[in-house]
Amino acid sequence: MENGGEGEARWRFRPSEVLSEASSVSIRTVLNKVMENLEENDPRGVLHLGHGDPSMFPSFRTASAAENAIVSSLRSAKFNCYAPSVGVSMARRAIADHLSEDLPYKLSPEDVFLTSGCTQAIEIVVSVLSRPGANILLPRPGFPFYEARCAFSGLEVRHFNLVPEREWEIDLNMVEALADGNNAAMVVINSCNPCGSVFSYQHLAKVAETAKNLGIVIIADEVYDHLVFGVKPFVPMGAFGQITPILTPGSISKRWGVPGWRLGWIATSDPKHILKETKVVQCIKSFLDISTDPATFVQGAVTAIIKNTNGDFFNKIIEALRKSSELCGERLQEIDCIRCPSKPEGSMFLLVELNLSSLDVIQDDFEFCCKLAKEESVIVLPGTAVGLKNWLRVSFAVELSSLDDALDRLKSFCRRHRKKTH
Amino acid sequence: MENGGEGEARWRFRPSEVLSEASSVSIRTVLNKVMENLEENDPRGVLHLGHGDPSMFPSFRTASAAENAIVSSLRSAKFNCYAPSVGVSMARRAIADHLSEDLPYKLSPEDVFLTSGCTQAIEIVVSVLSRPGANILLPRPGFPFYEARCAFSGLEVRHFNLVPEREWEIDLNMVEALADGNNAAMVVINSCNPCGSVFSYQHLAKVAETAKNLGIVIIADEVYDHLVFGVKPFVPMGAFGQITPILTPGSISKRWGVPGWRLGWIATSDPKHILKETKVVQCIKSFLDISTDPATFVQGAVTAIIKNTNGDFFNKIIEALRKSSELCGERLQEIDCIRCPSKPEGSMFLLVELNLSSLDVIQDDFEFCCKLAKEESVIVLPGTAVGLKNWLRVSFAVELSSLDDALDRLKSFCRRHRKKTH
Repeated sequence: MENGGEGEARWRFRPSEVLSEASSVSIRTVLNKVMENLEENDPRGVLHLGHGDPSMFPSFRTASAAENAIVSSLRSAKFNCYAPSVGVSMARRAIADHLSEDLPYKLSPEDVFLTSGCTQAIEIVVSVLSRPGANILLPRPGFPFYEARCAFSGLEVRHFNLVPEREWEIDLNMVEALADGNNAAMVVINSCNPCGSVFSYQHLAKVAETAKNLGIVIIADEVYDHLVFGVKPFVPMGAFGQITPILTPGSISKRWGVPGWRLGWIATSDPKHILKETKVVQCIKSFLDISTDPATFVQGAVTAIIKNTNGDFFNKIIEALRKSSELCGERLQEIDCIRCPSKPEGSMFLLVELNLSSLDVIQDDFEFCCKLAKEESVIVLPGTAVGLKNWLRVSFAVELSSLDDALDRLKSFCRRHRKKTH
Repeated sequence: MENGGEGEARWRFRPSEVLSEASSVSIRTVLNKVMENLEENDPRGVLHLGHGDPSMFPSFRTASAAENAIVSSLRSAKFNCYAPSVGVSMARRAIADHLSEDLPYKLSPEDVFLTSGCTQAIEIVVSVLSRPGANILLPRPGFPFYEARCAFSGLEVRHFNLVPEREWEIDLNMVEALADGNNAAMVVINSCNPCGSVFSYQHLAKVAETAKNLGIVIIADEVYDHLVFGVKPFVPMGAFGQITPILTPGSISKRWGVPGWRLGWIATSDPKHILKETKVVQCIKSFLDISTDPATFVQGAVTAIIKNTNGDFFNKIIEALRKSSELCGERLQEIDCIRCPSKPEGSMFLLVELNLSSLDVIQDDFEFCCKLAKEESVIVLPGTAVGLKNWLRVSFAVELSSLDDALDRLKSFCRRHRKKTH
């Protein structure tokens, strides 16, 4: 009778320490801390340039064809059941066909595994490649969810740089210098969160060759894929699957503006069947057997979502992003303490550098963002969260009027905190 | 240039070994192996008594109020966005109020964390309690997803028995004998999958006292909660939260017949705030910060799903389960080689023992199920999958006519394989 006596019971359970460490690097955690500084009584309301989710804004509302597809799938009552762990078969086919449009060969339905958003796709690729002694190469700046999942899985992380002066291209010399025979994979995010850059065909070809030389798989995070509005077209990494095997996490979240629908995938671009032979594919299936799935009726709607959403919808979204990225770039140039090294060409973000020496009593990017939240009710992500101290990640996927208002507030904040020159 | 030469490239990545081990114990994996034996050309069609998912049958179709709630939530376009990692606030409140109806005190919205089905709720409670050296007490027979997740998380498992002769009650002497100061939790599944049993108030009170004495948290898996149709009412373990802290994984999957909607939760019944003080609650939040969520528009529908589904729907489902459980019990009694120790009172399953000595050339439950699939196109789960060799788990949550047909086939299968007596 261990707890039977007087006084306090002796509780034997304790929480996992790995989890709190892992979650400390998430964007959610950092944004929550920034948002704690908001003044509830600011009558102007909060303006969010912190995350990549414009789904609440009228200009970014998803296609009615997509909504209708969900309703039909639900009303059919055919998709209230559990789904196969790899995903509903016709949804796998629809996504394989959709992705194949951009590839030099055709993916089969067996190359596609449905996941609960790109979030779960990343959980899976990281878990599957986590082995004692292995390490993974991640971009800096990057998407810290990778670091969080690696911490959770005990997979060692090594960083390579993206170079702002070269339109945020990958520093491939640095990647090669990280080769140690224990590298399992490298992550390539294109269109790039957080940089807003788009990689050229030539650069991607070099990346594939580098990965092949290292004997590693490329995790090609293409959740922002076709959201490009600059000179360079979007080229999927899968186009280089002949060179090195590619695992592509993706989703309908960004392109259709529905991150809350939680429908993603992992596609394998692997014409030489290396992922199959090394049993990586089998391991993905094993993970799916013991984890949750995307809602079955959302899976059941995928074919119609892809088929019935017309080009006008995508053009409208691209046009909105182009306009807001241009407004954002122009307005930021008016602000002394901020430098934008590279015009965004894709995704929903740009990265700007803070010149703290021109500001009074602001220690770093985190303090900048906390004060901005408090004084101006504007939320921006500290660059620290994406691996670049004293930078800011600004989302421009915001209704134009709100964006303009937010940039006004940012400008007046910077002016107010400008160091007095003597 | 490691892979630059002639011939085969040297690929450096290898899949995680933990994952394939962990998934080998899942019901999905076992059922998939059984189903490999199906004869495609059997004109009679496949009858599924293998899993707890009757959503495809007209008698078990979900309430139209629930479907309407999803459509309204979707059409509002307010829930296409990412959700807070702990869940949409009004959904947490609706579930807290819903669960509080059966409790001697009121849960607050902060006691409820939304998850992607009960599957993810189990992932979370296991991950959160996984620490080096700790162990967890699981029921035998049980739900093997716990074993799978423990294997994945490296949490040691110890089993206690459920006693068929005592209506599958927990052998509490055995639980006490497993006390070693490193126990973190015990799992109590009520209404019980796979046994079809329902625990009495008195038994649950003793379980809570035992857990308190061991200083452990109870994981009260109540995904089948109110699906009871026998003498005993369903009593939530949370009623004993004053004695020992309770983590309750639950979901709308079973009661509303919508496992494919993937909406579950973890509720904490912890009036003494032990889970908060030991930082278990904080650790649940950390997990949620780095994992996927249930679809936001399903979360947005929860309030209306709970409020607008009327009692007639639940009564209809209970009546259907009562009838089919009775038919199943009666028909199984006609079969020589099968013994059912206990009449089911809840969930969707019953457990029956195979008398292999009366059968010819069938080695074990797995072979029995494989041959049954091959010869009769009937799927039943081998007891091995739930920890009881040479038993069978039969789901009776099936349209009556199909159930009758399946039991006919099972009977003729057993007759055909009966050992010739000399």
